[in-house]
Amino acid sequence: MELWYTDQHTKDVRFSMKIEEQIASCESEFQRIDILKSCEFGKVLVLDGELMITQKDEFIYHEMISHVPMAVHPNVKNVLVIGAGDGGTIRELTKYDTIERIDMVEIDKMVTDMCLEHFQETSCKLNDKRVHMYFEESLRYVRMKNDEYDLIIVDCADPYGPAEGLFTREFYGNCFKALHDDGILINQHESPYYSEHSRTVQKAHNHIKLVFPFSTVYQCHIPSYPSGHWLFGFASKKYDPINDLNEEAWNKLGIKTRYYNTDLHKGSFYLPTYVKELLGTNE
Amino acid sequence: MELWYTDQHTKDVRFSMKIEEQIASCESEFQRIDILKSCEFGKVLVLDGELMITQKDEFIYHEMISHVPMAVHPNVKNVLVIGAGDGGTIRELTKYDTIERIDMVEIDKMVTDMCLEHFQETSCKLNDKRVHMYFEESLRYVRMKNDEYDLIIVDCADPYGPAEGLFTREFYGNCFKALHDDGILINQHESPYYSEHSRTVQKAHNHIKLVFPFSTVYQCHIPSYPSGHWLFGFASKKYDPINDLNEEAWNKLGIKTRYYNTDLHKGSFYLPTYVKELLGTNE
Repeated sequence: MELWYTDQHTKDVRFSMKIEEQIASCESEFQRIDILKSCEFGKVLVLDGELMITQKDEFIYHEMISHVPMAVHPNVKNVLVIGAGDGGTIRELTKYDTIERIDMVEIDKMVTDMCLEHFQETSCKLNDKRVHMYFEESLRYVRMKNDEYDLIIVDCADPYGPAEGLFTREFYGNCFKALHDDGILINQHESPYYSEHSRTVQKAHNHIKLVFPFSTVYQCHIPSYPSGHWLFGFASKKYDPINDLNEEAWNKLGIKTRYYNTDLHKGSFYLPTYVKELLGTNE
Repeated sequence: MELWYTDQHTKDVRFSMKIEEQIASCESEFQRIDILKSCEFGKVLVLDGELMITQKDEFIYHEMISHVPMAVHPNVKNVLVIGAGDGGTIRELTKYDTIERIDMVEIDKMVTDMCLEHFQETSCKLNDKRVHMYFEESLRYVRMKNDEYDLIIVDCADPYGPAEGLFTREFYGNCFKALHDDGILINQHESPYYSEHSRTVQKAHNHIKLVFPFSTVYQCHIPSYPSGHWLFGFASKKYDPINDLNEEAWNKLGIKTRYYNTDLHKGSFYLPTYVKELLGTNE
């Protein structure tokens, strides 16, 4: 028997991988959760039929969403992570001894439970004593916060279903309020290539730049995601992601990474012309 | 009826696109040639079942293989292009008035004939009077050349079938000999992500660096190619791709591009750590 899982990248594009076995499947209050073992990508987490992370390339996503702001902001003590139920972003953040507290707000506890059981390489630091997990609606959580965080990371799914509210202007405004005066907001920013996603890129960027004095986008290669060309938003009240990058300080930390490095950090902000046009930032 | 074309990215990964119609199909002396019209990518050129170019993203490949060396070498007059039967690389090169002659060596005339008929946006400059087309075996062609070119671009298919010989040390040595003292060699360098391709990346880079004093690799996002993470090799006798980039001069030319720009040029050489390790260039 051959078993194949297909992720629908657009209505006319399919990405399929051969599966060795379906490891687990359940239905939470919010979504269907599947864990598959694929031949090429190792274990794969699927929510409502859509690929979330694979064992082979989750390091790219999680390194790029975490280390870019950490190499810019000189003094991160309190971090809020929204979504991130798989634990990968937390794993990267716990590499910094200077971080004192990480609040994680994930709507679906069952995702975290499944990852604790089946994605141990990814979820291995969720038990770090600096990590506080809140299983609740993040929009409401953030609305109650004032001047509490140095860094907020929005590590969420695509903007439909549970994550829809995480791409609105109201939400970004509440993040602004929850951040200190030199705070940074990072959000997963979808892909610029297929028109279904590029509209989200444009809308999210337009919302963020109305809220934050500084707002830009950086890119990386995530082969298992639609088009493989993935963006993150970098918004801040004070710091510039290139001028305020402290390469020497970051490299001195001796943090082991497989994708991120401080040269690539700079390169990731140099966007293709068509992406700059999409964002309205082409001179 | 639904018609889908599938490109096999690895034996366990498939990339499929919905097809409106099969526009043309023929068998040349060397390979089977198909042209399809897809819903998402526009027209698609397929050789022996493998996706070569799509109307939607061929600009990324062709801009990155052409403009990177052209923005570094200050005085390109004679160019040799190997493969490139679709004409896209030629289209980009003809944007430079300073180029006096472009020799194109393509083994399969039928590919060029099909592209002249069906890929007019790509093949539109093959009739430029500076272009000289040779339909013959390129290994032999290059072997006969001495100190003739400022730039050689190897715009070929994957390293099996007709293009196999274009990834050997002997071939790179002949390119070195065919170049002037300040010449540059650019080659399509496959993808670092799937192990089937990353072995080629490693082997090709090891061959080239034994032949050229300066050799490195740069990257871009080509969503229709396996993993979407594509590499090109930059090898030269004299010029460094970042230190010798003349941004001001290139920007003054006013060449219209949709992917390439001189900031992205620099960024494309800043590679992920795992790619640097693959190439043996990680400090």
